[in-house]
Amino acid sequence: MIRARVVVTLKNGVLDPQGKAIEGALGTLGFAGFGSVRQGKVFDVEVEGEDRDAARDQLTAMCDKLLANTVIENYSVEFV
Amino acid sequence: MIRARVVVTLKNGVLDPQGKAIEGALGTLGFAGFGSVRQGKVFDVEVEGEDRDAARDQLTAMCDKLLANTVIENYSVEFV
Repeated sequence: MIRARVVVTLKNGVLDPQGKAIEGALGTLGFAGFGSVRQGKVFDVEVEGEDRDAARDQLTAMCDKLLANTVIENYSVEFV
Repeated sequence: MIRARVVVTLKNGVLDPQGKAIEGALGTLGFAGFGSVRQGKVFDVEVEGEDRDAARDQLTAMCDKLLANTVIENYSVEFV
């Protein structure tokens, strides 16, 4: 079994309302001295087999079809 | 400005309904040969200053107070 981590983040320039809400909440909680906060998603996926190239192809297809909205999001695949 | 990435994931043993839903959807889309899928959150945070130790302390406090539910979630902080 291959363990992979997919990280999906908003492309630069795309407004992140969740990030903005978190910035506001952190300020309310008394935090200062921080800049932007941008939120994304992380998926820990197990892929059967030992062929990393095949696993990367499958994970990429999973991202393109489901895990990421490639119009506004970037994704990265790494093996852990 | 220091750029950090906080990754928040569910602790082992904690049921992940979102992950289960994604597993189902991937199956429906025709994907096979994969095991579990577990979803988490990632936060890209900018912290002012250049002192990484101070930044790590602040990010840890942010996680403990807001970004993570430490009863069911783990978090990691790394500088990017």
